This record gives sequence, structure tokens and C-alpha cells, in this order.
Amino acid sequence: MANEKKQVEQITDMDEDFGRWYTDVCTKAELIDYSSVKGMFVLRPLGYAIWENIQKILDEEFKRLGHENVYMPMLIPESLLQKEKDHVEGFAPECAWVTMGGDEELEERLCIRPTSETLFCEHYQHVIQSHRDLPKLYNQWCSVLRWEKTSRPFLRHREFLWQEGHTMHATAEEAREETLRMLNVYADFLENSLAIPVIKGRKTDKEKFNGAEETYTVECMMYDKKALQGGTSHYFGDGFAKAYDIAYTGKDNQLHNPFQTSWGVSTRLIGGIIMTHGDNRGLNLPPRIAPVQVIVIPVAQHKPGVLEAARELTDRLRNAGFRVRIDESDHAPGWKFAEHEMKGVPVRVEYGPKDIEQNQCVLVRRDTGEKTAVPLDGLEEAVSRLLDDIHENLYRRAKANLDENTCPCTDLEQVREQMEKQGGFAKTMWCGDEACELKMKEVAGVTSRCIPFEQEHLGDTCAVCGRPASTMVIWGVSY
Amino acid sequence: MANEKKQVEQITDMDEDFGRWYTDVCTKAELIDYSSVKGMFVLRPLGYAIWENIQKILDEEFKRLGHENVYMPMLIPESLLQKEKDHVEGFAPECAWVTMGGDEELEERLCIRPTSETLFCEHYQHVIQSHRDLPKLYNQWCSVLRWEKTSRPFLRHREFLWQEGHTMHATAEEAREETLRMLNVYADFLENSLAIPVIKGRKTDKEKFNGAEETYTVECMMYDKKALQGGTSHYFGDGFAKAYDIAYTGKDNQLHNPFQTSWGVSTRLIGGIIMTHGDNRGLNLPPRIAPVQVIVIPVAQHKPGVLEAARELTDRLRNAGFRVRIDESDHAPGWKFAEHEMKGVPVRVEYGPKDIEQNQCVLVRRDTGEKTAVPLDGLEEAVSRLLDDIHENLYRRAKANLDENTCPCTDLEQVREQMEKQGGFAKTMWCGDEACELKMKEVAGVTSRCIPFEQEHLGDTCAVCGRPASTMVIWGVSY
Repeated sequence: MANEKKQVEQITDMDEDFGRWYTDVCTKAELIDYSSVKGMFVLRPLGYAIWENIQKILDEEFKRLGHENVYMPMLIPESLLQKEKDHVEGFAPECAWVTMGGDEELEERLCIRPTSETLFCEHYQHVIQSHRDLPKLYNQWCSVLRWEKTSRPFLRHREFLWQEGHTMHATAEEAREETLRMLNVYADFLENSLAIPVIKGRKTDKEKFNGAEETYTVECMMYDKKALQGGTSHYFGDGFAKAYDIAYTGKDNQLHNPFQTSWGVSTRLIGGIIMTHGDNRGLNLPPRIAPVQVIVIPVAQHKPGVLEAARELTDRLRNAGFRVRIDESDHAPGWKFAEHEMKGVPVRVEYGPKDIEQNQCVLVRRDTGEKTAVPLDGLEEAVSRLLDDIHENLYRRAKANLDENTCPCTDLEQVREQMEKQGGFAKTMWCGDEACELKMKEVAGVTSRCIPFEQEHLGDTCAVCGRPASTMVIWGVSY
Repeated sequence: MANEKKQVEQITDMDEDFGRWYTDVCTKAELIDYSSVKGMFVLRPLGYAIWENIQKILDEEFKRLGHENVYMPMLIPESLLQKEKDHVEGFAPECAWVTMGGDEELEERLCIRPTSETLFCEHYQHVIQSHRDLPKLYNQWCSVLRWEKTSRPFLRHREFLWQEGHTMHATAEEAREETLRMLNVYADFLENSLAIPVIKGRKTDKEKFNGAEETYTVECMMYDKKALQGGTSHYFGDGFAKAYDIAYTGKDNQLHNPFQTSWGVSTRLIGGIIMTHGDNRGLNLPPRIAPVQVIVIPVAQHKPGVLEAARELTDRLRNAGFRVRIDESDHAPGWKFAEHEMKGVPVRVEYGPKDIEQNQCVLVRRDTGEKTAVPLDGLEEAVSRLLDDIHENLYRRAKANLDENTCPCTDLEQVREQMEKQGGFAKTMWCGDEACELKMKEVAGVTSRCIPFEQEHLGDTCAVCGRPASTMVIWGVSY
């Protein structure tokens, strides 16, 4: 029967081939499966459970801030999509089009939503009449589709799961506040729940969302020093409202167009978790979103009383509010250790006859491998503390990676050398000219990630053209 | 400013025109909005919040029984759909087809999932190799699309939200157990959470799901005496497994095909709630899924201290675990009463200066309109009891409607007369012949709803053809 036992599979060394390591983790930790449509993936139970935990925390926070969930249709008539010109130009090349319903050709083709601004606008046009109807703070959890040429698990799916907030406000000021409020929700979530440090900032005009006046972003650095955009929040002004005829009667009895925002995060975040915390043993999940926080492994489970005692311990931890499972399978303990490390479980509890006798168990940290024997009295507190420690440690490591690989530069050549030598992020002064962004890309291979809120003074001239500059930009290579 | 105040809108009398009453409730209680694509609706905050509560209760129960959530792609290649012949024949006429990705014509057209058996089978083919991989107990929350000619809010959408469970088992017996276990989960949920009584039974071969060996159903009777299928659970045998090459190595070291089930409920349930409990004042929500269970209306809120006291009362009820809101808007109390009745809030709390003085509040039941002054001491218990009473009363009323309108009949003519006179359900003996089902439809206008598990002996001959019969069937007109 030995050949029938599932083996813990080997993964590529992350320092040898980070791309292959990443795909290995996605498949061998059983996060995803491929489907027969290119770029469309199956989210397996572990992958989906991480998303459920992300949803739960964010959804609670959205609701606490007064947002309500709705659900819009998944299909957009071509004529509806076309009302806002910048928006349609950006998305039309990526649309999947429905042209047949049953046996009949449709009179107008319908696009599967790549994002839902247009649908929200159509609905807002129906339900916003008076200043009493504002603000509208709506959010939607759904899947969207973008017909991209290349694909990669979590990072670039043709179909992906996300949330998209769409809000309408009486004043520009209020809409701008909402835009930044939600950016901060994302930043706090990434740092406090995913242990991913972020740089908050504004996108340059070149990099902003199609149809937005301003786009804000939380940018993260992965283990391989490349950038991942963790979430974005857009301020639209009243451009869509005008294009879609949304107007309300103000307290002054005059008609006004409301001001709009949208903001979203997606299953990309799971890619971010993998690439920020993972290692050569596989996935390494931040405790606050880990579907299983504690895995109990009975040692010598064939011996009388061991399995029963391990089950009791499991129940005890479950009753204390931890997400805990026991692995009672007939694999050897060593196999189980490797398997749950691959799946990123933050804490392993080893519990065998000697432990039972000594009224203790052994806690093993996924992040450092450190083992500690812990008395059963006060176990709950020890596990709770350990999960917090692991979170802090994951965050600290990621922050060190970000800080050590973000380099101030004063000219283009220095950025090029820095990128060639070390990679990571460069920060430079920038004059604001798009031509300089393009030049930076051409020479140093990097694009602007954002204009960070925390500005530094690195000189008075643009690193590219030498003209006067008062804005600092972060540059990098992005997923 | 009077004309700017939103009026509580009138709805059609339900006994005059039930169809219009239904649409009125859907739109005026702000459950749905129409979109520019026929048959595709916007679920507004109240409609979606009911769905979220349905999801929460069911999802917990699914997980308690060992199911895991996954997410499959929304697009199915035509060739994948075609592998199981009965299945594709049933669904192909209702498929919406994607034929273009960006500017390019696709090599193979892709159907937006009308249901996901084929996608689950493709994945199961990848991940089921050994008896150790069984059972697989997966569920998916998603939207599906069926290109129907007619549409009606919640009852018949081209796109609707649902859950679809798909499980694989080593033996037929275990799969059959799962099929019935999940049917019972639905029955308990409808009765205990939605206050909708059900008839559990098996569908005739004519009415079963495309590709299933057996389909089980929970059938409900609406206020207008028509039937609504509340949820279905299917046993597939190993037909799909064979068509999709899913096989596992058993303990006997031989290859076997596993046995499959699927089961689902959808946003149709919201239609069922409306049509079971609603009345001429609008929506009437069963307390256990009502997004707002208690609405607090401050009376004479301009008087000093009233609003503050009402907010305290609201917080107190919220802290006790009720879903509670306060209406502080500047509408008159009478307007507010009608508004929250329209939206189906089970309990209204009226709280004004006299109440504050007497340390009491007034509780008003949505279902009966009954008003009771209740001392603030022990308010939590009173509200809790009242919500349970309302649930029981809603259930009792619906059960009486079902019982009073289900009539035993012995021949076709009697069914015809019964339907003409009273409508509702007829129960008769049936020989098992599909020709008799067709005849029943032709003469009496009814179809078989199910062969109920609770059989009765109403004679020994088929009500249609007079041949020997030992099976009792429930007949009715279905949504």
C-alpha cells in the first residue's frame, strides 16, 4: 500500500526560480487547479477558505462604516458600457462578449462585467433623486472577467473574485474623504490581517484607473522584490454621473450631479500572501486569515489513549475560539509535519504519550520552526500569544525586505544600476511629466508604483530630465 | 418641501391581482430594480441582505456536515458541456454563449454556467485517484445564467444567485444518504428559518433534473395556492463519473467510478418568502432571516430627551443580539410605521415621552398588527419571545393554507373541478405512467409536484387511467 500513500511533494527552490516556486506552491498546497479554459482557475477548498476569511474581515469593516451590499447583473450591454469614453477605451479590448442566447443571435452584444461602474451608474440613475438619497454607500462581492493574453494563479486570472465598492456623494469633498477612508481600510487590513506592509500613495495620471480623476493605491513588495498593487481606491468626480445622467435635487431646489468613488481588492491578495510570506517549505499563512490556525498531530497515535487525548485537546482549543483541526490520518508524523507546513498552518501541536504523561504539549511555529514544550495549564494563552508573535514576525520580516530594498536615487543611471544589481524599489524626485515616466521604463525597466503620501526630499530636480521637481515617486517592476 | 418627502407607495390588492401585488412588493419594498438587460435584476440592499442571511444559516449547516466551499470558473467550453447527453440536451437551449474575447473570435464557444456539474466533474477527474480521496463534499456559492424567454423578480431570472453542492462518494448507498440528508437540511431550513411548511418527496421521471437518476424536492404552497419548488437534491449514480472518466482505486486495488449528488437552493426562496407571508401592507419577513428584526420609532422625537432615550433603547436591543435599527428621519411616525411594514420588519418599537415616563415601550407585531405596552425591565425576553411567536404564527398560517388547499381526489374529472373551483394541490393515486401525467396536465392543468414521502392510501387505481396504482402523487400549478 506504500505507493498509494500520498507523498508530500517537492517544490522548486524559491531562490533558484521564484516563478516556478510560486506555481508549485499554488498547486501543491492545493490552492488552485487548472480548468480547460485558459486563465480560468478552480479555487480549491484551501484557496477559497482564505478568500472567505478575507471577505469576513473586510465585509464587517465595510458594514461598520455604513456600506450596504448589493448585487448587479453580470452582463453589460455594449451601449451602456460606451457612455463613459475613457472607461470603455480601457476595458473594451479585454471584454468577453456574449453574442448568442440559446439558439438566437442577440440584437446587441453583452459584455461580461470587467468591473461594474456602468451598472452601478444605471441603477443610481434610477434611485438617486433627492439629496435625501445621498450618500449611497454600496459594495458588491462578485466575479469579474478580463480577457487577458497571459495568466498566472491569483495574480492574473481571466475571471477573478473581488469586491467593488461604489459610492455616491453630494459633495466632492465627501467623496474624496470616502476614497481615502477606504484606502486606509485596505492599508490597515493588509498590515493587521495579512501581515503585509504597504506604501500608501497616489497613482500618476498614466497609471490611474480608466475614467477616474484620481487613483490611490496600497503597494506591497514581494519576496522577489517585485511590486504588487494590493488594492485601489478611485475618485471619479462627477464625470460618470454626467455621462449617465445621475442628478439630484439639492436643498437649494436645484439639480446637481453627485460625486463618485469606487474601490476594490481581489483574490490577487492571496498571491500577495504567498509571495510575501512563503518559503521553501511552501505556504506560510498569516494567523488572522489562516483557515486552520492550529493543526494537532497525535504522536504514536496507535497507542491506547493518545487519539482520545488529542481529540480532547483539539476540542479544548476549538472551544477557546481557535480554528483548529486534528490530523488523524494513518500517515507517519513526519509526513504530516511536512504536509501542514506546505499548507501554511501557523502552529503545529505535537502531542504524544510522553506529553500526556507530563501534562504538556509541543508547539511548533511554522514561520521559524521553533519548538517549545508548553504546560497544558494556560495552553490557550500560550497559543494566542504565539499566533500574535507569528503575525508580528511575518510583518517584521516583510517590512525589513521592503525597507532594505527601497533605494533613494538621484538620476536615471543610478536607478538602472540599482535595478540591475539589487532590484526592488527606487525612489526619486519626478517633475510630473509622463515623458519622464516612459523614459524611466525604457532605461531602467521600472514603472511608477505611486506618489507616496510620506514624501521625502531627495533633491530639487527630476531624476530623469533634471528639471525642477518637488514630488517623490516610488518606481519598481510590478506583477 | 412636502412634495419632496418620499411617500409610502400604494400596492395592488393581493386578492385582486396577485401577480401585480407581487411585482409591487418587489419594487416598492426596494428588493429589486430592473436593469437594461431583460430578465436580469439588481438585488438592492434589502433583497441582498435577505440572501446574506439565508447564506449564513445554510453555509454554517453545510460546513457542520463536513462540506467545503470552492469556486469553479463561470465559463464552460461547449465540448465539456456535451459529454453527458441528457444534461446538455436539457441545458443547451438556455445557454448564453461567449463567442468573442476582446477583438478575437474564440476557437470554441463558451457557455456561461447554467449549473456546474460539468465543471465539478472536470475537477474531480483531476483530484480523485484513491479511495482516500473520497468522499468529496464540495459546495459553491455563485451566480448562474439561463437564457429564459420570460422573467419575474426572484422566480425566474436569467441570472440568479444560488448554491450548488456537488459531492462524490465511494458507494451508491453513501451518495443516496447524502442526497436525502441535504434534502432534509433544506426542509428544516425552510420550516425553521423561513417559516415555510414543505412537502418532501421525489420527482417523477418526467420532472427530474437533466442527467439525474433521482431528484428529490421540497414543495411549498404560496398564498395564491400555486406551488413553488423550494430546493432540490439529486442522486446521479455514476453516470457523470463514467462520462467524465472519474475513477478511483479502491481498497481492493481495482478501479471504480464514484457516485455523485448535487443539491441547490437559490434566490427563488426570496420569492417564496414574499408569496408565503406577504400581505396588503407589503413584505412580511420571518424573524430569523429578517435583516432588520426590530425597528425603533421615536414618537415626538423633537421633544427633549426622546431621541437620546430611543438611541439608548436601540443600543440595548443591539447588545442583546437583535438586528435592530432606529428611524430618526424627519418623516411623521405614521409614515414610518407604513414604510417599515412595507419592508416587512417583524417588530416595531414605539417609544415616546409617555413611554419614557412610564418606563415602558410599545411593541407592535408586523404579522397581526397587535400592540402591547411592555415594561422596559425584561424587554429583551419580551422581544425574543415575540419574534419566536411571530415565526410560529407565520408558519401556522402557511401550514393552514397548505392543508386547507390540498384535496384528495380519485379521478381526473374531480381534479379538474377541484382546480377550477379552489385551486391548490390535488393528491391522487398514480400508476407511474408518463402518459397519465400528460393527460392530467391536459385535462386539469396541473403537473406532478412530487411523490411525497408521506404516502396515503386513496384507493388502488390510477386517477387518470384506472389501472392498478400504489403511489400517491401531489399535483399542482407551479411557478
